[in-house]
Amino acid sequence: MNLLLQEIRHNPLLWLLGFVPVVFAAAKFKPEAHTLLFVLSVLAIVPLAVLLSHATESVAAKTGDAVGGLLNATLGNLTELVIALTALRAGQIMLVKASIAGTIVTNTLFMLGASFLLGGLKHHVQEYNRVSARVQAGLLFLATVALLVPSAVGTADSGTGAAFTQKLSVGLAVLLIVAYGLGMLFSLKTHREFFTSAKPAADGEAAWPMPLALASLAGVTVLVALVSEIFVESVQKAAEAFGMTPAFVGFIVVALVGGAAEMASAFSGARKNRLDLSVGIALGSASQIALFVAPVLVLLSYVVGPTPMDLQFWPGAVVMVLIATLTATLVTNSGRSAWFVGVLVLMVYLIFAMTLYLLPPRVQ
Amino acid sequence: MNLLLQEIRHNPLLWLLGFVPVVFAAAKFKPEAHTLLFVLSVLAIVPLAVLLSHATESVAAKTGDAVGGLLNATLGNLTELVIALTALRAGQIMLVKASIAGTIVTNTLFMLGASFLLGGLKHHVQEYNRVSARVQAGLLFLATVALLVPSAVGTADSGTGAAFTQKLSVGLAVLLIVAYGLGMLFSLKTHREFFTSAKPAADGEAAWPMPLALASLAGVTVLVALVSEIFVESVQKAAEAFGMTPAFVGFIVVALVGGAAEMASAFSGARKNRLDLSVGIALGSASQIALFVAPVLVLLSYVVGPTPMDLQFWPGAVVMVLIATLTATLVTNSGRSAWFVGVLVLMVYLIFAMTLYLLPPRVQ
Amino acid sequence: MNLLLQEIRHNPLLWLLGFVPVVFAAAKFKPEAHTLLFVLSVLAIVPLAVLLSHATESVAAKTGDAVGGLLNATLGNLTELVIALTALRAGQIMLVKASIAGTIVTNTLFMLGASFLLGGLKHHVQEYNRVSARVQAGLLFLATVALLVPSAVGTADSGTGAAFTQKLSVGLAVLLIVAYGLGMLFSLKTHREFFTSAKPAADGEAAWPMPLALASLAGVTVLVALVSEIFVESVQKAAEAFGMTPAFVGFIVVALVGGAAEMASAFSGARKNRLDLSVGIALGSASQIALFVAPVLVLLSYVVGPTPMDLQFWPGAVVMVLIATLTATLVTNSGRSAWFVGVLVLMVYLIFAMTLYLLPPRVQ
Repeated sequence: MNLLLQEIRHNPLLWLLGFVPVVFAAAKFKPEAHTLLFVLSVLAIVPLAVLLSHATESVAAKTGDAVGGLLNATLGNLTELVIALTALRAGQIMLVKASIAGTIVTNTLFMLGASFLLGGLKHHVQEYNRVSARVQAGLLFLATVALLVPSAVGTADSGTGAAFTQKLSVGLAVLLIVAYGLGMLFSLKTHREFFTSAKPAADGEAAWPMPLALASLAGVTVLVALVSEIFVESVQKAAEAFGMTPAFVGFIVVALVGGAAEMASAFSGARKNRLDLSVGIALGSASQIALFVAPVLVLLSYVVGPTPMDLQFWPGAVVMVLIATLTATLVTNSGRSAWFVGVLVLMVYLIFAMTLYLLPPRVQ
Repeated sequence: MNLLLQEIRHNPLLWLLGFVPVVFAAAKFKPEAHTLLFVLSVLAIVPLAVLLSHATESVAAKTGDAVGGLLNATLGNLTELVIALTALRAGQIMLVKASIAGTIVTNTLFMLGASFLLGGLKHHVQEYNRVSARVQAGLLFLATVALLVPSAVGTADSGTGAAFTQKLSVGLAVLLIVAYGLGMLFSLKTHREFFTSAKPAADGEAAWPMPLALASLAGVTVLVALVSEIFVESVQKAAEAFGMTPAFVGFIVVALVGGAAEMASAFSGARKNRLDLSVGIALGSASQIALFVAPVLVLLSYVVGPTPMDLQFWPGAVVMVLIATLTATLVTNSGRSAWFVGVLVLMVYLIFAMTLYLLPPRVQ
Repeated sequence: MNLLLQEIRHNPLLWLLGFVPVVFAAAKFKPEAHTLLFVLSVLAIVPLAVLLSHATESVAAKTGDAVGGLLNATLGNLTELVIALTALRAGQIMLVKASIAGTIVTNTLFMLGASFLLGGLKHHVQEYNRVSARVQAGLLFLATVALLVPSAVGTADSGTGAAFTQKLSVGLAVLLIVAYGLGMLFSLKTHREFFTSAKPAADGEAAWPMPLALASLAGVTVLVALVSEIFVESVQKAAEAFGMTPAFVGFIVVALVGGAAEMASAFSGARKNRLDLSVGIALGSASQIALFVAPVLVLLSYVVGPTPMDLQFWPGAVVMVLIATLTATLVTNSGRSAWFVGVLVLMVYLIFAMTLYLLPPRVQ
């Protein structure tokens, strides 16, 4: 417990934990104040995501390389998974889909671009492991194809029907999970020598002892789930109050909130000239969402949700995911970076954000 | 003749030649047994394709480098050409188009991916000649653009009319054949030093003497044409019996049957750590279909077919060909491979196959 | 003045200057002879563009590296800008848009491809600076994304409305200009060591003294503007007389006329085995049109035009720009070239030109 407090004292982001009780109190006494609840829940989720990520890493560090890598890879996007599950249970399929596509786009463009820019402002030219970046980009490309096909076929012919899309989505979900598993087998086992420097190191932070780590993992997950419920309920109404379109909220706001913890690590890695770490987090996180979180949500939607979810996205979302993947592939191809590469990638993100912000609501 | 028998004894695939007389007998006495005829004709075409490919290589080996390369390149997809011509004469334009697109996709994804996987399971990391792969990928990209444009314009505006598409297709066909010819001039003549190791070697098999090779070439082509007729007549009805959609049949079944011989060579090359050979066969065969077979069929359709054929494909087919080309380009860019690269490429193929299998029939 | 005359004597293209007075006379006495005026104005614009380009380079050479680079980059497409502004003032938004998309496509495909081919016919293999090519291709890719998004969203949903497209276009225009400025900061200031050999050298030609250069710059710009007016007025009617579609005129004819000066430099660089120069001019000019000229026209359209211009292009134009950018990216990735690479790139251009030529008029 002392360790936990010490950690909190050192990391200013964790001071936001104070908002966790506040948001619960507000939800109880002011259930109609959507904008307030939205802001408070965002402020509460961010430090919880940081804690969750630290707890996962501590458990991973104790369990040895292979199992640890597996744990890190599976629980690394636990926050996003819990938020999406909450939205799924509330029947908000559109929000879940927007946040999946948005997280992929935000991680590949904003997280990667800002890492390149922040690193490049401090270091003239930065080099990183391109083999690792290529495998991640390859996985991401595969996932994009899987997302593209049902949407392309669904758009090309409006008569294909929901039954076709449902069956296809379940099949694709299984394929993606298999590809994800094989990708871990490849990078953690058979060819791990190519991936060494991309592994997230503990980075000076002391790993927690096992009981504390496991207890935090369980406790914080429950807290994230509870706060997510308030977040999901308030987000759409708050968005209207801020003049934001629902597409913008799902794509940009939810994605930024859910990924706050990874972003902190990626940016700090870039500043320390450890771009391998940043690229690994950004692309790894994106491909994890695409190949693990999204298909798991499709399969779980048959169990927990009021209606099953499919993988057919709004065409604009498919175009954005496709462009984001292509950008990441082209940009990481050389294994070198300078500040302007970051600017280019961020500009693509800004174009998307601007389009979504201006988009008339009923289009999404 | 002895040589031919010796060859048959050594190659188990050739034992299937026994099905050639069986399929003719069945077509005469049981013309209504579509499913049976379909299965028998598939079993008969595969060994004929192997023989045809060996005969072509033998003639090529005897005629010296430049002419041999030319022959190999032009007759390498003779089986596909004969099947497609038979379908064209029967007026089955949709089947011809599906099999063209399907052969491109099957060669770039299934043949390439399975070669990478089979080679990678035996060898940790494999290297191959990337210059040669790049030229093939470049040719393939060009062909994809040529297929994309009439379809994109045709889709964007339904009022462009058939006359426009016909004229454009003939023009594109001529352009593609010119590009194909210049590509051969480049790789066989002006810059052949970059392509040396990608040339298909006789690979331990004895080349046949010229008379036998020429006689086989002529005789087997006639046999393939005759069996193709039975195949084309039975394939659609048999597909229904198996519960396969017509799109799946054209894209996957016809493409796999027509390419069986090349696949055998490509996979055996990959196992022997001669990935140059596999990549050359897979991409070379795909670009040959796209730049030579497809335009020749367009031009021939004005002579042999009941209706002329154009290059406007179903949008889903264009998307698949585009993704297949992009995948091949990205994957062969590094000149290195491991088993997981094969998995990624095969997964893209599986996504397409699954989509086509589930597609409601009337959409194709 | 002597220097100017000397220049004219040495460069046969400049003999065409004789057509400048002729076109003004013809416009005064035969205002109805559209075809004649069109041909004369084309013949007059080409030498003016060459003079303008030489004047810009002379001013740039005198003002030192950074300012010179800036001037070169901003005024390098002055001819295109003046022609487009004239068309904008005449309310011919469709022509402006077609010529923007057409110039990007013509520079990335025709200018680049012909440089590779012309250079490759003389030199077996040519090498060039790929870092510089990559940055240009990256900027071009960004611009393509910016053009793609409003068109994609506009096509996906016809209900988004003109107000959305207008607002989005202005926002994108500002973003693109910022990206363009940062790109110059990067290539001329912070990381210029990577771009050294790509800088257009005076190439044996003597730089003009400052007063002559400045006077030419001002005088020739006015002449280009005056001739452009005749060109823009006559082009559509002349096109009909030649049997060309308006799309073909905007995309191909206007783009070739406006870029004649740059093409002369690019081709001569390629023949002299200075492919860095050719690639720099082709891609640099294309990205300048996309990131500077196009957004400036959008912003200026609110001041000078009868109707404001947006960035929503005809879907076919977006597909062509996208493919052109992708082609340039893939082709310049290796930093090496041979004649066949030029053929491939030119073939893509021919496919587009053929499609536009055959396109029924009302589709564009």
